[in-house]
Amino acid sequence: MNDAAVDHHTLRSERLRRVRQRMGELGVDALLLSHGADLPWLTGYRAMPLERLTLLVLPARGDPVLLVPALEAPKLPETGADVAVRAWTDFEDPLSLASDILGPDSDRCLALSDRAWATTLLGLQQRFPAARFVLSSSVTAPLRAVKDRAEIAALRRAAEAADRVAGALQAAEIAVAGRSEADVSRDISAALVAEGHRRVNFALVGSGPNGASPHHDAGNRVIVEGDLVVCDFGGEFVPQGEEVGYCSDITRTVAVGEPGEEVLLCYSVLQAAQAVGVAAARAGARAEDVDAAARTVIADAGYGNRFIHRTGHGIGIEEHEDPYLVAGNRTPLVAGHAFSVEPGIYLPDRFGMRLEDIVVVGDDGPEPLNRADHGLAVVEP
Amino acid sequence: MNDAAVDHHTLRSERLRRVRQRMGELGVDALLLSHGADLPWLTGYRAMPLERLTLLVLPARGDPVLLVPALEAPKLPETGADVAVRAWTDFEDPLSLASDILGPDSDRCLALSDRAWATTLLGLQQRFPAARFVLSSSVTAPLRAVKDRAEIAALRRAAEAADRVAGALQAAEIAVAGRSEADVSRDISAALVAEGHRRVNFALVGSGPNGASPHHDAGNRVIVEGDLVVCDFGGEFVPQGEEVGYCSDITRTVAVGEPGEEVLLCYSVLQAAQAVGVAAARAGARAEDVDAAARTVIADAGYGNRFIHRTGHGIGIEEHEDPYLVAGNRTPLVAGHAFSVEPGIYLPDRFGMRLEDIVVVGDDGPEPLNRADHGLAVVEP
Repeated sequence: MNDAAVDHHTLRSERLRRVRQRMGELGVDALLLSHGADLPWLTGYRAMPLERLTLLVLPARGDPVLLVPALEAPKLPETGADVAVRAWTDFEDPLSLASDILGPDSDRCLALSDRAWATTLLGLQQRFPAARFVLSSSVTAPLRAVKDRAEIAALRRAAEAADRVAGALQAAEIAVAGRSEADVSRDISAALVAEGHRRVNFALVGSGPNGASPHHDAGNRVIVEGDLVVCDFGGEFVPQGEEVGYCSDITRTVAVGEPGEEVLLCYSVLQAAQAVGVAAARAGARAEDVDAAARTVIADAGYGNRFIHRTGHGIGIEEHEDPYLVAGNRTPLVAGHAFSVEPGIYLPDRFGMRLEDIVVVGDDGPEPLNRADHGLAVVEP
Repeated sequence: MNDAAVDHHTLRSERLRRVRQRMGELGVDALLLSHGADLPWLTGYRAMPLERLTLLVLPARGDPVLLVPALEAPKLPETGADVAVRAWTDFEDPLSLASDILGPDSDRCLALSDRAWATTLLGLQQRFPAARFVLSSSVTAPLRAVKDRAEIAALRRAAEAADRVAGALQAAEIAVAGRSEADVSRDISAALVAEGHRRVNFALVGSGPNGASPHHDAGNRVIVEGDLVVCDFGGEFVPQGEEVGYCSDITRTVAVGEPGEEVLLCYSVLQAAQAVGVAAARAGARAEDVDAAARTVIADAGYGNRFIHRTGHGIGIEEHEDPYLVAGNRTPLVAGHAFSVEPGIYLPDRFGMRLEDIVVVGDDGPEPLNRADHGLAVVEP
């Protein structure tokens, strides 16, 4: 545990160093971090979605200061000597404190968290009318997208936990036949927690025609013979001895009773498309190449207009983060990029199917983190 | 059910009418609603915290259009004839669609959700450099703060459910002695769900010295004889036949074994302060008057510097919303305002106590929604 703690502090110092370097390259004079994943990535602390503002003020030169509501201050983990903490009470104005740290308004560039609230941005713009505001992701996203060894290890453990839940579905240890989608979703959620997730982010169960809506929430429909059941679930997994969680995200499709020929044909196309997408996830390729690789397989089989979403999204502290695998994203992939590869085929009013793994770009090619069986699992009706 | 549905549609149309009227008064040319409670309050639909943008574009004149990610569109409830839906796919740009609806840039005032992400605000500012941006709360907050009958009924049902959980704690049906704070928190959470909450927002359990930190999260400390245990919990309660939830929030303090004289004295001060605060919650008073009323009782007893937070916050679709009961808030209270009254006394390193009810300002005086016993419950060690 102690080794882990030291390691994390070192990793955060290294992240801070790279952030400062990139701020210099981009001409960003201060980073202002509130809601979202940049703050926990840099400090190990996540701002709660409270109306009371949490804000890390990180000037290009000078020490960072974490402004935190006094009521939240006792919950702060050890932020390390790098970050000073300034707790503010209900009788103070945190933006005034931020102004004091940043000094008088001037023609400069301030980078604010992408998910900071409009309240915060408009308040800052009033105080700093001469400043130019940009998103903190312009600094952090390319750094955060490339995972270090500790992050890949955390993603792997999250994926292994999700794999065990997927395996339970495929082995019918979590029953689907004769039950409502909502009941199956509850079982999946409980299993994710039992396998070590701190929080379930989603447990989508789309059966029969509902599966043709890719983000269908689990509802009251009872699963019957002949259904395909698309199960897409994930959550936040916190490895022992750490504070910041990393996400899992996996999709497997289960058939209730022997599937017909059309389903088997579609599934073989889907499985091939997913495998081709994974194989394309190599250093040097572009993000959009992975999308194109998977999409081409499906299009060539005549289902191009039935694959109605992008092929995948980056994953880390957030379920969805850079890099996005979508046409137009020409970001070159490098070792350490981690993302989902999740093509799907959706036949409106009939059925849907999707197959998703998390994949890390390795030095020697793609490294899929999910190992649950990729075939169409068939369970007894 | 059908009556309820009709009623909700009528209520939303009435809200829309009042919003448009206020937009006219304030010179707001369009309301742009993304994350936060304004959107569900107006439409019954809540934008998920996704990177794919959901945005209601409501021009002062002309019909509102809800831009929604295509993947989410099938989940939309009946928004009513008032709102057109435009689903956008991964291959489109939602801000371009918003621009098309709003027309070319001009010197006008656009009101964006307080909790819209900086990404959205900066994107809009780039497309509309001549526009002035304000927060949607400048339009909606005073309207949303005054609850209509359906909202008060929903808050009452949420409070009754929370009361039953508080009663279970006071009757030791949820045991605290000899257990960890985290175990007690889990039981409270499970009881909130069993009593009908859709989601638990928090279940704080602060025992012994931990209780002196008002927002202490439940941790591993085991509760022992002589402890005061501050239990503050709430969640989102969705009345049957409705889609949008309203929040509960209650605090009760439990003593493990007979408390000493100082604790009893402090508690009698706290209970008096809370009762005086509730009694001050009358139409015509100002929000800060309620804070002053409760604070004066505690200050007069010599504990003024031990009451380290504001007296309360508005509650509705959000746990914390207008009006805030804090010095400086001169908002006049009117019938329909709903908020917490929750003074506390905190002795660092020793103990804390807090007593909280949700109160609605009625035509004939304050109407507390929580009825759980206000005394210091004593449970067996």
